[in-house]
Amino acid sequence: MKNWKTIKSKTVFECKYFKIEEEDFKTKNGKTHKYYILDRKNYVVVIPIENGFVYLVEQYRHTIKTKLIELVIGAMEDGETSLKAAKKELEEEAGIKAKKFTNLGWYYSYKGCSGQKGFVFLAEGLKFGEQKLEELEREGEMKVIKVKISEVEEMIKSRIIKDAETIASFNIFMLKYKSSFN
Amino acid sequence: MKNWKTIKSKTVFECKYFKIEEEDFKTKNGKTHKYYILDRKNYVVVIPIENGFVYLVEQYRHTIKTKLIELVIGAMEDGETSLKAAKKELEEEAGIKAKKFTNLGWYYSYKGCSGQKGFVFLAEGLKFGEQKLEELEREGEMKVIKVKISEVEEMIKSRIIKDAETIASFNIFMLKYKSSFN
Repeated sequence: MKNWKTIKSKTVFECKYFKIEEEDFKTKNGKTHKYYILDRKNYVVVIPIENGFVYLVEQYRHTIKTKLIELVIGAMEDGETSLKAAKKELEEEAGIKAKKFTNLGWYYSYKGCSGQKGFVFLAEGLKFGEQKLEELEREGEMKVIKVKISEVEEMIKSRIIKDAETIASFNIFMLKYKSSFN
Repeated sequence: MKNWKTIKSKTVFECKYFKIEEEDFKTKNGKTHKYYILDRKNYVVVIPIENGFVYLVEQYRHTIKTKLIELVIGAMEDGETSLKAAKKELEEEAGIKAKKFTNLGWYYSYKGCSGQKGFVFLAEGLKFGEQKLEELEREGEMKVIKVKISEVEEMIKSRIIKDAETIASFNIFMLKYKSSFN
């Protein structure tokens, strides 16, 4: 914002998954405020499709103590491109290699609290193999679910899928590609 | 998860907007792990429609240092129902009173990090008045934008709208109501 000025910024909490930055800033009327920003790595979301089907994953989420049906999603490591992360996450979480990745754009995931971005990829030309799960994913019995593309919107409508990042990512895909499946 | 057990949980960071909970837990193979959960109030998202138009807001987001076009969104205060919060946020942020609110369901906003839920409401029978903005909203020049319902998906496709919560919420609305506008 023109006329807003950051006065100082410092890390006030740090863990393996994210940092919290405390920021003091001044708005245009001259008053100062504090804001707390969640600094978390950008991530990728992958939509692997083949013959009218999409491959989702079901995984246990410790934050909500239950399993969720989601798209493949994973953090980008430092220095890693979104494309490289998309390939890696698809292979690790779903055991799928893809010949073709298409960048569908990115969004802000959680703008009230973080500047984190989610990069959405379509993956086509699939080859199926074994998942390479991390320990908590394995302990959480992460598994791949094959669903007709034409049924996903019904799963959102009936709230079988209730993860905002999956809903937003799939919508971006459908807005661009839906006509191909009708 | 069956056989996962929380050993202890404590608050390791707290600010005006959220807390961070550190949780030690054991998975079914007996190993212990630490997880950090963002504890942030649930929120409401409101979709006010009238005569084929929807009313969005544009606001400056300090987390990303730019303005975003979004749906009306706001935290539920302790003890407040989602319906009450929806009425309040719509009136404060957009200056709109509505005769009828329809609960369209909720989603997990940010499941990798938080159990926070977003409750989506459709608002109809609108009466337009003055916004009652909080200081940072006023300093951030928050304003209402009137858009044809039929144009919002194009705004998502062309990335004029790039906020995941707005995209997911609008999609939930469209999946249920699109046929009414065609």
